[in-house]
Amino acid sequence: MQSSPLLETLMESLRCLPGVGPKSAQRMAFHLLQRDRSGGMRLAQALTNAMSEIGHCEQCRTFTEKEVCAICTNSRRQENGIICIVESPADIQAVEQTGQFAGRYFVLMGHLSPLDGIGPDDIGLDILEQRLQTETLTEVILATNPTVEGEATANFIASLCRQYGVEATRIAHGVPVGGELELVDGTTLSHSLAGRQKFKY
Amino acid sequence: MQSSPLLETLMESLRCLPGVGPKSAQRMAFHLLQRDRSGGMRLAQALTNAMSEIGHCEQCRTFTEKEVCAICTNSRRQENGIICIVESPADIQAVEQTGQFAGRYFVLMGHLSPLDGIGPDDIGLDILEQRLQTETLTEVILATNPTVEGEATANFIASLCRQYGVEATRIAHGVPVGGELELVDGTTLSHSLAGRQKFKY
Repeated sequence: MQSSPLLETLMESLRCLPGVGPKSAQRMAFHLLQRDRSGGMRLAQALTNAMSEIGHCEQCRTFTEKEVCAICTNSRRQENGIICIVESPADIQAVEQTGQFAGRYFVLMGHLSPLDGIGPDDIGLDILEQRLQTETLTEVILATNPTVEGEATANFIASLCRQYGVEATRIAHGVPVGGELELVDGTTLSHSLAGRQKFKY
Repeated sequence: MQSSPLLETLMESLRCLPGVGPKSAQRMAFHLLQRDRSGGMRLAQALTNAMSEIGHCEQCRTFTEKEVCAICTNSRRQENGIICIVESPADIQAVEQTGQFAGRYFVLMGHLSPLDGIGPDDIGLDILEQRLQTETLTEVILATNPTVEGEATANFIASLCRQYGVEATRIAHGVPVGGELELVDGTTLSHSLAGRQKFKY
């Protein structure tokens, strides 16, 4: 018997967060009520704002509350004509953190998955095709995940690029830096061998 | 460079939840935006309601949006005159789930901790003292945690009970059911030996 319907609703609602089960939800609810009510109110406000106002960038499909996101509107990022294609907005952050990429992005928000009914238009390839047609692009970097679906998606987009005469490249698969060779799985190691490069003296 | 200030605010706000770091916050935010916007809105509403409306029960100090909680107003639970004293509202749920207790509760919302400046009044012992004075109680079960602070708190409350001639009992410490004796720590085992009971044929 629970003493508060509002508390029960809160615990139930917290479970919409990924990785939050009944125990964590209870812990979170009690923590907020007991120690951080202002944090809870701030979170409620941030959720309302984000859920209602964040949409997708018209050009790259990442999450933004503007029509076109900050990266797409940045003129310096348009100069080199390179687009990096990733599966999710989180991947953009990962690439940005390397500080190695100065072009723009295109976010698929998923990958091709015919069995789940996810076709080219569902991952925005119609928008990408328009961009390939209208913009002067020098290179499309395929940075989809190194999974079966990610590879299939990369292949599909590569053939699309060929159609419009834009060079497509794939990020390198190989041994992770700092890892030990004997712990690397066979597939990765064979990719690493096949993708070997001339030693740079 | 983040493309959306609202998204950044959401990630930052999610970190007020216990056990949520930057990576989990990012995952939660993207999950809600991509797959469960209605869940996010419901959570925002539930948070607002809970944070603004949930207070403490006047009698037992548990969380409730009413003046007196459902357990305290239940007349059948007042009959036996037993109060179970616990440290947090989560403990009430744990005891309720056993289905073994038909009395009422008193929630300390913490424990005595002089080093942190938490004295008797901070854990509501003034309210408890009033209840000991005015109500006809037959027993006070001390179900604080089996920690140093929990034991100290239980001792303090027990002496308070003696002052008002109310019997105080402490929940049994011992070997957990289903555990193996060789894995139980020494302190628990010595408690278990000291608290041994006559065999019930």
